[in-house]
Amino acid sequence: MQVAAILFQDFETLDIFGPVEILGRQTDKFTVQFYSLEGGLIHNLHGVSILTQSFDHIISELDILLIPGGPGTRELINNQVFIDRLKDLAHRSAYVLTVCTGSALLAKTGLTDGKEATSNKRAFDWVVNTNDNVNWIRKARWVQDGKYYTSSGVSAGMDMTLGFVSDLMGKEYARKIANQIEYTWMEDKENDPFA
Amino acid sequence: MQVAAILFQDFETLDIFGPVEILGRQTDKFTVQFYSLEGGLIHNLHGVSILTQSFDHIISELDILLIPGGPGTRELINNQVFIDRLKDLAHRSAYVLTVCTGSALLAKTGLTDGKEATSNKRAFDWVVNTNDNVNWIRKARWVQDGKYYTSSGVSAGMDMTLGFVSDLMGKEYARKIANQIEYTWMEDKENDPFA
Repeated sequence: MQVAAILFQDFETLDIFGPVEILGRQTDKFTVQFYSLEGGLIHNLHGVSILTQSFDHIISELDILLIPGGPGTRELINNQVFIDRLKDLAHRSAYVLTVCTGSALLAKTGLTDGKEATSNKRAFDWVVNTNDNVNWIRKARWVQDGKYYTSSGVSAGMDMTLGFVSDLMGKEYARKIANQIEYTWMEDKENDPFA
Repeated sequence: MQVAAILFQDFETLDIFGPVEILGRQTDKFTVQFYSLEGGLIHNLHGVSILTQSFDHIISELDILLIPGGPGTRELINNQVFIDRLKDLAHRSAYVLTVCTGSALLAKTGLTDGKEATSNKRAFDWVVNTNDNVNWIRKARWVQDGKYYTSSGVSAGMDMTLGFVSDLMGKEYARKIANQIEYTWMEDKENDPFA
């Protein structure tokens, strides 16, 4: 399955690289590529500069669209060109996974209107204000509604991604990955100690 | 404090970006920069291409040297030029943090001879064979011996980094970071469910 990891200036480091570790290490099942609206190097506040291809390079249907959060989302939700392109990509994806305030970007596309979703507890009210047509779930490690998976803040993206793998390939397979990376997976998506 | 994150071809994604998330987000305390032996773009098996500066750009004393593991370490321990440069950098650093098989690279420098250290459980025997003058601790989430912090596999690097922050700035400060990133910190370095 092709994983398109979406980056933008001031994305949150772990939001993207936690899920990328989990999916990317299953080299026989997932291939990760990094994309941004215009391609090139994307920087964030943690000193990361990562090379991306432009959205124009995504020509086929997508298996998995991965959308992180981060401080950059605050401005990006007002970038209609980005949101329109994101909507098109999400529409063409079999699954869409968001971490943290990445769910605000997805909400802006309107695709999660009437659907359940969650986000970072520390930015929850801001996220709700970006689109109150979404059925925002305040207490959840992650939420799945149809093809959309949304997670709480930062580390919750790893639990969600393992949950996604579990839904696709079974719980034992997900547990095996968690064990490989010596990660204590919070398996219960409703167990949210940070709410 | 300046954090020098050391990269090489086929580093493990989360080994580096877990600790970078924890340190990098404290923008008033830590500044992260990425380095590799020769600089330029460094790639790994998860599709990551990240821009680095060469070791030659590190001219001053270093506060924190961060060394990840990953499949690339298997060849890299035999690269004497890299090991010699790493030894120089570690020698000039106030603290040295390794994740996963990063401790094998550090062990090759000889700087941890006679000291306690740990590593990934899934590569432990290989790591021990790289230098058996180190007092390898098989059951530990992370180990601290003087200025050297070494952790178990992948996710353990996040627990170690929070432990390092706790040693420097107190446990409540470390807990605050863990809470910010909605991460359940395994605070006890001797609690190793993966051993």
